[in-house]
Order: sequence, then C-alpha cells, then structure tokens
Amino acid sequence: MSDDLFHSLDDTIHAKARLAIMSILLLDGAATFGRLKEVLQLTDGNLGAHVRALEEAGYIEVKKDFWERRPRTTCLVTSAGRQAFGRYMETLQRLFEATRRGDPPDQA
Amino acid sequence: MSDDLFHSLDDTIHAKARLAIMSILLLDGAATFGRLKEVLQLTDGNLGAHVRALEEAGYIEVKKDFWERRPRTTCLVTSAGRQAFGRYMETLQRLFEATRRGDPPDQA
Repeated sequence: MSDDLFHSLDDTIHAKARLAIMSILLLDGAATFGRLKEVLQLTDGNLGAHVRALEEAGYIEVKKDFWERRPRTTCLVTSAGRQAFGRYMETLQRLFEATRRGDPPDQA
Repeated sequence: MSDDLFHSLDDTIHAKARLAIMSILLLDGAATFGRLKEVLQLTDGNLGAHVRALEEAGYIEVKKDFWERRPRTTCLVTSAGRQAFGRYMETLQRLFEATRRGDPPDQA
C-alpha cells in the first residue's frame, strides 16, 4: 500500500523550498519575491530556480509590476497549484495514518 | 509562524527516499535491504547512501546476518528514529492545518 503513496508524492511540491513557497502562497494569497527570499533565506538564483519550477508546472503565476518606482515580482498560487497541494497533503496524510496504525512486524 | 515550521522540518527525514524508508520501517517493524530496494526502485549505491544517512543520525539500526546461507542486511527503526518521525509529522500537520485555515491575503 505505502509503495504507491511514495511514488505518487509530487516531487515538484515535496522539495522543502517549494513546499515552503506553496504554503506561504496558500497562507497569504500572494507573496513578493523579496518576502519569499527573506523567509526562505535563499539566494536570488536559488529562489529563482524554485519559482520557475513551480511556474513551469502551472502551480504558480509570476507577475511583474512597479511599486514605489521599483520593479516588483509577485507570485500567486493558481487553481492547479491549489489542487496539486491538496493531493500532496492527502497523500502524506494517508501515509501518516498508515504509520500510526502500525501494521504487525513482517521481516520479509 | 510558518517560517519556523519550514526551518524546523527535519531534512534527514524529508528527503523522499528517506521518508519512504522510515515509513516502511515504522509500518513493518523492520525491512531487509532487498525489500527497500524493490519498493523504492533505487540502486544499491543510492539506497546505501540513504540508509547510512539515517544510521548516522541514529534513526535506524542496520544488522547483518545470514539467511538461507546468504548474507542479509536488515534495517530497524530506533526509538530516536520514532521520536524524530513523530516530530516531523507534527511539523507538517501544523503546516497543513495553517494552510487549511487560510489567513487573509497580505501582499507585503
């Protein structure tokens, strides 16, 4: 049973930095690149790569505008991203429930 | 709030392969190297590296014996491993609960 759960865990979301980005976007609705950088303590290049991976998967949208005459990059979660995060959470929840139940030992 | 949750997520457990190993050991009590390899579809070298990382963290114990005249390597979860997995689950649960509550949008 647990075998399928692991293989179906969404790698795009599971990477710690991307799990953090998705959670922040779901919590706050949206976040600027600057805020994500501050929270995650990542370099521009590293954060940029994670943001691109989520954007390419269709899980977030990236918008650029100006705020107080400075360029601003804002990330927003998409409906596909919400769904993917829901599935990811559900998979982990099922895994946790299974480990809590604790099947009898089996030394194959 | 969520900031602390991410930083406290146990990296030793979070890596997908190691999360899988820990869950299998918690589900089944113990597992042979062969069974882990089959479930996770990893090479000997790759699985060996993950097993060593968990062993070095004190989360699992590795025992070697013979079974049907062949060498057998068995992994068992330790009490420290159980505790670490419990903390990891708790951290993720809190994260999930926070994202479910959905705080009001805040475009900082």
